[in-house]
Amino acid sequence: MDRMRAAILSIGDELVLGQNLDTNSQWLADRLLERSIEAAEHRTIADDRTAIAASIRQLALRADLLIITGGLGPTADDLTRHALGDVLTPGEALERDPAATVHLEAIYARRPTPMPPSNRVQTMRPRGTAFLPNPHGTAMGIAGALGGCRVYCLPGPPREMQPMFRDHVAPRLELRGEATVLRAAAVHQVGMGESHAAELLGEMMARTSDPLVGTTVKDAIVTARVRASGPAERAERSVAETVAEIERRWQPYAFGRDEVTLPNAVGQLLRERGLTLATAESCTGGLLGSLIVSAAGSSDYYRGGWIAYDSAMKTSQLGVPARLLDQHGAVSEAVARAMAEGARQAAGTSLAAAITGIAGPGGATGAKPVGLVFIAVSTSAGDTSATSVRRFEFRGDREQVRDRSAQCALQMIRFALLGVADDIALLWETPHATRTEGAARR
Amino acid sequence: MDRMRAAILSIGDELVLGQNLDTNSQWLADRLLERSIEAAEHRTIADDRTAIAASIRQLALRADLLIITGGLGPTADDLTRHALGDVLTPGEALERDPAATVHLEAIYARRPTPMPPSNRVQTMRPRGTAFLPNPHGTAMGIAGALGGCRVYCLPGPPREMQPMFRDHVAPRLELRGEATVLRAAAVHQVGMGESHAAELLGEMMARTSDPLVGTTVKDAIVTARVRASGPAERAERSVAETVAEIERRWQPYAFGRDEVTLPNAVGQLLRERGLTLATAESCTGGLLGSLIVSAAGSSDYYRGGWIAYDSAMKTSQLGVPARLLDQHGAVSEAVARAMAEGARQAAGTSLAAAITGIAGPGGATGAKPVGLVFIAVSTSAGDTSATSVRRFEFRGDREQVRDRSAQCALQMIRFALLGVADDIALLWETPHATRTEGAARR
Repeated sequence: MDRMRAAILSIGDELVLGQNLDTNSQWLADRLLERSIEAAEHRTIADDRTAIAASIRQLALRADLLIITGGLGPTADDLTRHALGDVLTPGEALERDPAATVHLEAIYARRPTPMPPSNRVQTMRPRGTAFLPNPHGTAMGIAGALGGCRVYCLPGPPREMQPMFRDHVAPRLELRGEATVLRAAAVHQVGMGESHAAELLGEMMARTSDPLVGTTVKDAIVTARVRASGPAERAERSVAETVAEIERRWQPYAFGRDEVTLPNAVGQLLRERGLTLATAESCTGGLLGSLIVSAAGSSDYYRGGWIAYDSAMKTSQLGVPARLLDQHGAVSEAVARAMAEGARQAAGTSLAAAITGIAGPGGATGAKPVGLVFIAVSTSAGDTSATSVRRFEFRGDREQVRDRSAQCALQMIRFALLGVADDIALLWETPHATRTEGAARR
Repeated sequence: MDRMRAAILSIGDELVLGQNLDTNSQWLADRLLERSIEAAEHRTIADDRTAIAASIRQLALRADLLIITGGLGPTADDLTRHALGDVLTPGEALERDPAATVHLEAIYARRPTPMPPSNRVQTMRPRGTAFLPNPHGTAMGIAGALGGCRVYCLPGPPREMQPMFRDHVAPRLELRGEATVLRAAAVHQVGMGESHAAELLGEMMARTSDPLVGTTVKDAIVTARVRASGPAERAERSVAETVAEIERRWQPYAFGRDEVTLPNAVGQLLRERGLTLATAESCTGGLLGSLIVSAAGSSDYYRGGWIAYDSAMKTSQLGVPARLLDQHGAVSEAVARAMAEGARQAAGTSLAAAITGIAGPGGATGAKPVGLVFIAVSTSAGDTSATSVRRFEFRGDREQVRDRSAQCALQMIRFALLGVADDIALLWETPHATRTEGAARR
């Protein structure tokens, strides 16, 4: 039996005119590929009822599965449900769904304003279709069929679309008894550049190799993606072996597989060891803390921290000696060390991380360029403490400098927990890491 | 004369299968819109000669301009030139271009390795077409025409494609003496739901109105996008008037136009008034601070803050009385107020914002559901201080609850700076805001 062929249709003036970037189509195609379904076409069109209906007709002829995102909102330019009706039940009005009405009214019962009349349209769907629940918004999805093609309409916002796909579309995409399946996995690392990381994989990345291995970069994270096809058992074994080999070659930078984030990986280590963490941030302004608490259950190990954005906060809250600030400046190894040690002691935690730097565009001086950041991790165990500081010169704009700083701080916390030596360099690090040890002052 | 309609076709297995994100189509659509050319469709298909030829035929029928990216490389899966030949000169072989041969040989003369024979295909193009130079690679572009539609093929890598578009395609997209141009602008707001916001715009959002007004949502931000076409002066005036009218109807929720973010808008108000800000965050873990410092120059007004993630931090760092925590719990109006007042006093700022809540998935109790968040803003002026607290029940997952909390906190800071009354409700707010005033304890 042939594999299922899919088409993905994105709807929105803001997408087709280039005002917003559509990331849904790629995300969906990637999820489909994991289920051995190949997308044959993505198409993006405007909020135009006639054009939407025409595209639905054309794509349904060529595909077994059509996924449509966008155009399910309550406003006059949300036309997907109407266009679907034009195709499935031409000439008929849309039907009101009683369960959808209950769902919408329950949402508005929790809001301070009554439901605007325009939202009523979100309870309407073409005859013969079914709603798909949306736990995160008012735009329910619609499931239907046109000839041999199954059609799923999902809302455009990724935070609504993605869980709806996972919970209500994916389970309906059973593999139809195929002998050949596709299996995919990912390995993530922070701290090596993409080309260096790719070189370590060497022959594994040849276009003809099986499994197929490729690398992608998103922000500071480099990911190796592994895909194998064939009989299920063989494909699974092949992916598992390849993933293990990538992790071996990417030691100690690889922090997790698939959905594991660096904050999850760090959190898991802290939880296993019963350790606690605090943060002290200057240029990142709370981003590190925000990443740490992105992991559910972070209150098990994260006590909190300080955003010591100006020098007075560094002195008054973290006990950084004014002398250090005067002598070395706020962006210095000595101040990063004092911030981390001060945070660890004030919060009474086993570890603390501190970041101080120049995110730009302003703030640079002759000796201190934009992108200069010092990151310190202070640990205590029993009667001793140790603090490592690394110096970085990050490239990129304000947002990139801040993001890379926070990611490197997380990786440094992970390295500290795993006992990775300070001379294992991180990308963008400039010599050289320093380490001080002493009696813990807790 | 009608405005030019464009279509954008992206070619590549890695794009349609979702392994790489196509950013070329958005970039091109945005560049076209700057030149008053609307993209009507983006399409992404695989490296499949028949499918490419079919899409070229279909899109050329509907558009005056077709831009194709990808598939011009030297390998067996680069098929764009062949497919274009199938459409323009069916049955004929491609022609070798002598100038292209010179260009390619010049590139390889500078490289250590001789030109692989496979690269010869990059000197071939359909009869009647012309090459477009590529200063950054071996894949030259191809310009041709099919019926009334101009066709430009460009290589896929953005670093090659973008300069080629700028230098060789854009200059040919002269406005053809048209008096008609397209102008676009955006207005952003936080605090009203999309449907409520759209209802306030009413007749402005009709699909037939000029300018055309539509709304989009990204995270907590609702944006109205305005487009007008016509003679330049009239289109500009029409957009300006409409934007001003939207801002009037969206008072006081609208915070900025086009590239202005909520942190920028808040920062601008603080800077103008010479005021300073501090933050105290629990469930958001530093996200509010991180957003505040996303605005360049935030050190002018932001002093820093506390991530008081556990109760001991709230007590020791912000002076929240243990009695309040015992009586009301950490997620309570009283604790939010005490956090904001404590932060304002400890940091010595004119304003402070505090957030305490349950981001989920754990942490809910009978009376306190996931999504329950209290946000307080404390201000001082001269001898008096005032603190407003709002209670929210946010929907969504952990990340959404945190994002919406931070955005609402920023909007509450903005409201405090503008003197907006506490009874102007924010979306997700549940009755009722409370306000205490007293002598400033600074």
